[in-house]
Amino acid sequence: MRKFAIAIHGGAGTILRSSMSAERELTYRKALEEAILAGEAVLMKNGRSIDAVEAAIVSLEDNPLFNAGKGSVFTHDGKNEMDASIMNGKDLMAGAVAGVQNIKNPIRLARAVMEKSEHVFMAGLGAQEFAKKINAEFMPDDYFFVQHRFDQLQEAKKSDTMVLDHTVDKEKKFGTVGAVAIDAHGNLAAGTSTGGMTNKKHGRVGDTPIIGSGTYANNKTCAISCTGHGEFFIRSVVAYDISCLMEYKGLTLKKACDIVVMDKLVKIGGEGGLIAIDAKGNIELPYNSEGMYRASKKQDEELYIGIYKD
Amino acid sequence: MRKFAIAIHGGAGTILRSSMSAERELTYRKALEEAILAGEAVLMKNGRSIDAVEAAIVSLEDNPLFNAGKGSVFTHDGKNEMDASIMNGKDLMAGAVAGVQNIKNPIRLARAVMEKSEHVFMAGLGAQEFAKKINAEFMPDDYFFVQHRFDQLQEAKKSDTMVLDHTVDKEKKFGTVGAVAIDAHGNLAAGTSTGGMTNKKHGRVGDTPIIGSGTYANNKTCAISCTGHGEFFIRSVVAYDISCLMEYKGLTLKKACDIVVMDKLVKIGGEGGLIAIDAKGNIELPYNSEGMYRASKKQDEELYIGIYKD
Repeated sequence: MRKFAIAIHGGAGTILRSSMSAERELTYRKALEEAILAGEAVLMKNGRSIDAVEAAIVSLEDNPLFNAGKGSVFTHDGKNEMDASIMNGKDLMAGAVAGVQNIKNPIRLARAVMEKSEHVFMAGLGAQEFAKKINAEFMPDDYFFVQHRFDQLQEAKKSDTMVLDHTVDKEKKFGTVGAVAIDAHGNLAAGTSTGGMTNKKHGRVGDTPIIGSGTYANNKTCAISCTGHGEFFIRSVVAYDISCLMEYKGLTLKKACDIVVMDKLVKIGGEGGLIAIDAKGNIELPYNSEGMYRASKKQDEELYIGIYKD
Repeated sequence: MRKFAIAIHGGAGTILRSSMSAERELTYRKALEEAILAGEAVLMKNGRSIDAVEAAIVSLEDNPLFNAGKGSVFTHDGKNEMDASIMNGKDLMAGAVAGVQNIKNPIRLARAVMEKSEHVFMAGLGAQEFAKKINAEFMPDDYFFVQHRFDQLQEAKKSDTMVLDHTVDKEKKFGTVGAVAIDAHGNLAAGTSTGGMTNKKHGRVGDTPIIGSGTYANNKTCAISCTGHGEFFIRSVVAYDISCLMEYKGLTLKKACDIVVMDKLVKIGGEGGLIAIDAKGNIELPYNSEGMYRASKKQDEELYIGIYKD
């Protein structure tokens, strides 16, 4: 049996220690711990990495602190439009949804696309119809109504800016959540989920549901989940780029992450970060922004939780 | 000045010489020639590869023979839902649309997303709204009504199968069109456009609008446009995989295409092909299906047109 390991993120951006109260920081730390424990619980019972990834992301989606699921930001039209994707490193199966509304856990819907449809990627009304058919859990609009998100929309509308961040105190933050894991069987998995951008125009799709950009997993190399300015992550095919640097150039996970996040993305102005785990259970949590909500846990090791630059 | 070159495809699949009349074959050959000449005309005037790619794809989209633009197949609901993407190898800028309706030339809309929005990828109603705002050319439903496509839908509905092909005579064909080019300035570009799958459920997104899967261009390596069973192309991140094999492993375009199309895709059951051009102007047109509508033209060389295995 291999040793299991799991890592999660709750978004990257301008997260400054100076603008965070001790109480607020504690709330985030508790939320990250809760999510990683939900994933770890699966792995401890010799469960599958894909189930651990789903469990951790569901926990983050259900928490209004993060821009995914319940905590999704409002689009220009005052709606919540969510994207998610998931990938299994063992067989390279994948599932993704974009622009879905009123779905309690988009990551579960992405997994259903992978397992219960002949497709990989479904968007918009068609994805909604698919959700109904498989009896996905729907929630009314008010479940997704979080006051400070609504206030953000009003503020963004005033200046007619598209806000990538989602905090009330003007931090720039890329609201995405994600998880990567390796289980005791040596199988890798990755998943990502987002509530989009405040005041975004209906229909914008970021990197979150794009296999190869926002999410990728392959037992041969690594599992990756990204968070950042999606347009740059799409153009850079970020998640698969790390896998290719390992597979074709023989780089370590750390070196591949350094090149992609700290050099290539920086050069084109692509702010953000990612979480990564390789087939040996090594974990990397690189980001080129001020901070990234992140946590990791390896079997028989201490839990790590980080928010700012260490 | 470099020598320019351009290649196009009109879809891959079970295209058999035995089931094609001489007259029908001639119609396809003429259509491919027309499209490649439209692209070449741009390149001959020292135009940009991105303009040549757009011109060639517009010609294919306007031709009812191909499953893109006017010739798009019908979804389950009797609608035409189209996807397209385009990428510029010089600056890695990209644009993509998914699930758009009544747009005469989806490739032009993808380009507008690249050049006139801050996004890379727009889908569904939001993409439609964006199209209205930039005054994209809309066409009424009957422009897209092609009798044999409608007949196909009725037939597919009877058996409730999802038909990937789009010919009346039971051939399996992946309806996509695409173009790749290098211009006299040494810049690469790629684009892809599709009308989807007959009888597909509303909302399925294939590889065509996915940067890295269906389309990719990078002056350092190559420009790629894919056609095939999209789900496998997404999971394999096909277009970027070829670029990575060249950049990270130092393979030639030919060798990289061989590995991805004739080995990796075949192993997972991913039928289809692609067109590829590298920074030196080399062209590859690999496919693992019975045939692929394809054409290529290098400066000062003869036009090549192919349909079946040569």
